[in-house]
Amino acid sequence: MSAPILAVIGGGQLARMMQEEASALGIHLRTLVETPDGSAAQVTVDAPVGGADDADAVRALVTGAAALTFEHEHQDSALLTQLQAEGVPVRPAPEALLLARDKLAMRRAVDAAGLPQPAWAEIAGNAQEMRAQIGAFAADHGWPVVLKTPRGGYDGHGVLMVDSATALDDGEAATWLEATAAARAGHATNGTGGGGSLGGGAVTSLLVEAAVPFTRELAVLLARRPSGQIAVWPVIESVQSDGICVETVAPAPGLDPAAARQAEHIGRTIAERADVTGVLAVELFAVEAPEDTRLYINELAMRPHNSGHWTQDGALTSQFAQHLRAVLDLPLGATTPTAPTTVMVNYLGGDSLPPADVLARALECEPRAHIHLYGKQWRPGRKLGHVNLTTSATDPAGIGAVRERARAVVAILRGEA
Amino acid sequence: MSAPILAVIGGGQLARMMQEEASALGIHLRTLVETPDGSAAQVTVDAPVGGADDADAVRALVTGAAALTFEHEHQDSALLTQLQAEGVPVRPAPEALLLARDKLAMRRAVDAAGLPQPAWAEIAGNAQEMRAQIGAFAADHGWPVVLKTPRGGYDGHGVLMVDSATALDDGEAATWLEATAAARAGHATNGTGGGGSLGGGAVTSLLVEAAVPFTRELAVLLARRPSGQIAVWPVIESVQSDGICVETVAPAPGLDPAAARQAEHIGRTIAERADVTGVLAVELFAVEAPEDTRLYINELAMRPHNSGHWTQDGALTSQFAQHLRAVLDLPLGATTPTAPTTVMVNYLGGDSLPPADVLARALECEPRAHIHLYGKQWRPGRKLGHVNLTTSATDPAGIGAVRERARAVVAILRGEA
Ligand SMILES: Nc1ncnc2c1ncn2[C@@H]1O[C@H](COP(=O)(O)OP(=O)(O)O)[C@@H](O)[C@H]1O
Ligand SMILES: Nc1ncnc2c1ncn2[C@@H]1O[C@H](COP(=O)(O)OP(=O)(O)O)[C@@H](O)[C@H]1O
Ligand SMILES: [Mg+2]
Ligand SMILES: [Mg+2]
Repeated sequence: MSAPILAVIGGGQLARMMQEEASALGIHLRTLVETPDGSAAQVTVDAPVGGADDADAVRALVTGAAALTFEHEHQDSALLTQLQAEGVPVRPAPEALLLARDKLAMRRAVDAAGLPQPAWAEIAGNAQEMRAQIGAFAADHGWPVVLKTPRGGYDGHGVLMVDSATALDDGEAATWLEATAAARAGHATNGTGGGGSLGGGAVTSLLVEAAVPFTRELAVLLARRPSGQIAVWPVIESVQSDGICVETVAPAPGLDPAAARQAEHIGRTIAERADVTGVLAVELFAVEAPEDTRLYINELAMRPHNSGHWTQDGALTSQFAQHLRAVLDLPLGATTPTAPTTVMVNYLGGDSLPPADVLARALECEPRAHIHLYGKQWRPGRKLGHVNLTTSATDPAGIGAVRERARAVVAILRGEA
Repeated sequence: MSAPILAVIGGGQLARMMQEEASALGIHLRTLVETPDGSAAQVTVDAPVGGADDADAVRALVTGAAALTFEHEHQDSALLTQLQAEGVPVRPAPEALLLARDKLAMRRAVDAAGLPQPAWAEIAGNAQEMRAQIGAFAADHGWPVVLKTPRGGYDGHGVLMVDSATALDDGEAATWLEATAAARAGHATNGTGGGGSLGGGAVTSLLVEAAVPFTRELAVLLARRPSGQIAVWPVIESVQSDGICVETVAPAPGLDPAAARQAEHIGRTIAERADVTGVLAVELFAVEAPEDTRLYINELAMRPHNSGHWTQDGALTSQFAQHLRAVLDLPLGATTPTAPTTVMVNYLGGDSLPPADVLARALECEPRAHIHLYGKQWRPGRKLGHVNLTTSATDPAGIGAVRERARAVVAILRGEA
């Protein structure tokens, strides 16, 4: 039994955590990294340096590999399509990946599948025309609306809550409108102000969505193999701040069982219709009322996702191990939780460089905590790690107390306690 | 917060599994490996090649490191002592490590601590004198006796069950007696037939022990920091075959609580008296009778140990993470089990090279199994991996069924099912 080689594009923390599981499973990861001392490169022996759009580097990467996968969606579509045509197992395939790369393509596909999502429209033209289209959309659906760059966004970059028509006249919204109009007019090859456009050409239209008055955000994660097998983790609750996931609770406490079933149905439907392989995360808005719960699809990710970090310490199979298994078409592991509740709190860089002794103090603070660090240099707001904490509690007070414990660990890591 | 560097001597599976946890904790392992493509070297970026007794290699290894630790006990004592004198934090320290390297030193220390162990004697002289000493020992304690080379043994190499005086006259026992006598006579620098002698000089005497009629074998594992903090995992049951650990069940089912307490007391006493740092494993024989349970210390290991592999998937803190924390003097993690019972079955190489599809078939066989592979070439009897499987069962029938499941997974990996 010699180790299968799995090629991965991207050298961040997701690739790093894939490597931890690859080691356990005897899988050889070969990871294309942005810098030789980045998060994944620090722990991966076979880590050539190169860009996701460097055709030579990607071709060298896949030589001898059983499959090619990614830790982010910002891939060069044309290159992936060509590799696929040459017989390289690209997982997920470029057509599926598009739904995680392009929010307009995703909105169209979700409508076609008849699955629930916010009202939305594609906005294009010159800046004046776009203002009018947004105004018309708001007349139908009410203010505020949510303006999004279809590609290149992440962690809330590329998402703008717009309160009124006048808010479109200056600030970031105005910049987006001008840049998008200019890109369309000039068929320019640069992206808009809202995000990059790697392999996707210029962003020449915007997405507008009704603002969903959600009671909370949820996510359903699953993995799917090329052969069709699917394994779904329990639906989780996620809390965002400034567009960044900051905490998750798994399973989502007190969730209406019918809503949990619907979330799973949504995940399975997307995975099957789009022929997704690997981990699929579906971010959802829940509008919970006494009588029933309505779900709306927010966006998709096709890779291990922040909302699945809890699985490392709270489920029989972690999302990182499962992603490897899925893209290599190996049988999937059980997704059963190992504790009644698992809380995850992200460790984002604080306002100043933390002192040297924070790891010791954080470990001391909570001996049950699983601290995961990514080996990244401190920068304010940067994702530097996360903390998982399991508990037997399933009631709001008990879970709340454990969240406080996990936050206390993170506060120490940030140098704030 | 920059990553502390931890220097490790040894490039086998224990160092590999340390690296998996080092990655999660943001710790930089620098591992001195025997070969550039060995188990740990495959997954460790900073993995210089060199022998444990190569002073230059070890000196380079510890440069800039926060501490030096090991994945095996076969170290060059003089070198370690010198490094320690120069201020390198050697953990465990050479004086402690001696008790895991030399079974005679261990027997003396256990007697001095007043802890329970089999009757034993040191055997030395010419072959005829040694035969007489063994005969006298057996006259007091009965046949069979167990003959051991004090150093260099592992997995049952270096352990011989001797049924009668005539069994000393030929075969392996005779070879050992001759070699040991020759070493003593000649102050030769080679070890005896029973094992190596790295850094320990020639083995010039043997250990004889009363054969304990144990009902089962147990192990207690703990970790201890230089600052004195100790964390103990529940006592486990281990099953050996031909001197190799083949299965463990954690916690040891149905163990007399008083015996569990005594085992913990034994572990703590040894750790504190010998100033052990890092993981300490104490192998125990249990003689269980309706009225009470008697424990006897078999041997010590000062590093992550096969009897602690279950902690990777069955305890809040794995022995590998805990060892890193302990030797870096970081606060220890909780040792609480995450499941009522965790079964571990070793994957030893079968009689022939397994077919290529065994991993897929093994994963398919049991979706709850945690398969750990070491990236090692197949060889009959070689430790190639292990399988952990958790269960809610605590009754003999339920645990027995889960052991069968784990064995089934291993049988597939071996190419036998
Ligand atoms: N239609 C919407 N209604 C209400 N809130 C939204 C809407 N779209 C996005 N948001 C908020 O913005 C966050 C980020 O939006 P998302 O499209 O997921 O961007 P990103 O790709 O940066 O994660 C969401 O998690 C949610 O909190
Ligand atoms: N005194 C003894 N009485 C009974 N069995 C013994 C005795 N010593 C060793 N054994 C058996 O041999 C195995 C290996 O012995 P041990 O000293 O632990 O050697 P190793 O260093 O190879 O692990 C033990 O696990 C036990 O099964
Ligand atoms: Mg999002
Ligand atoms: Mg032993």
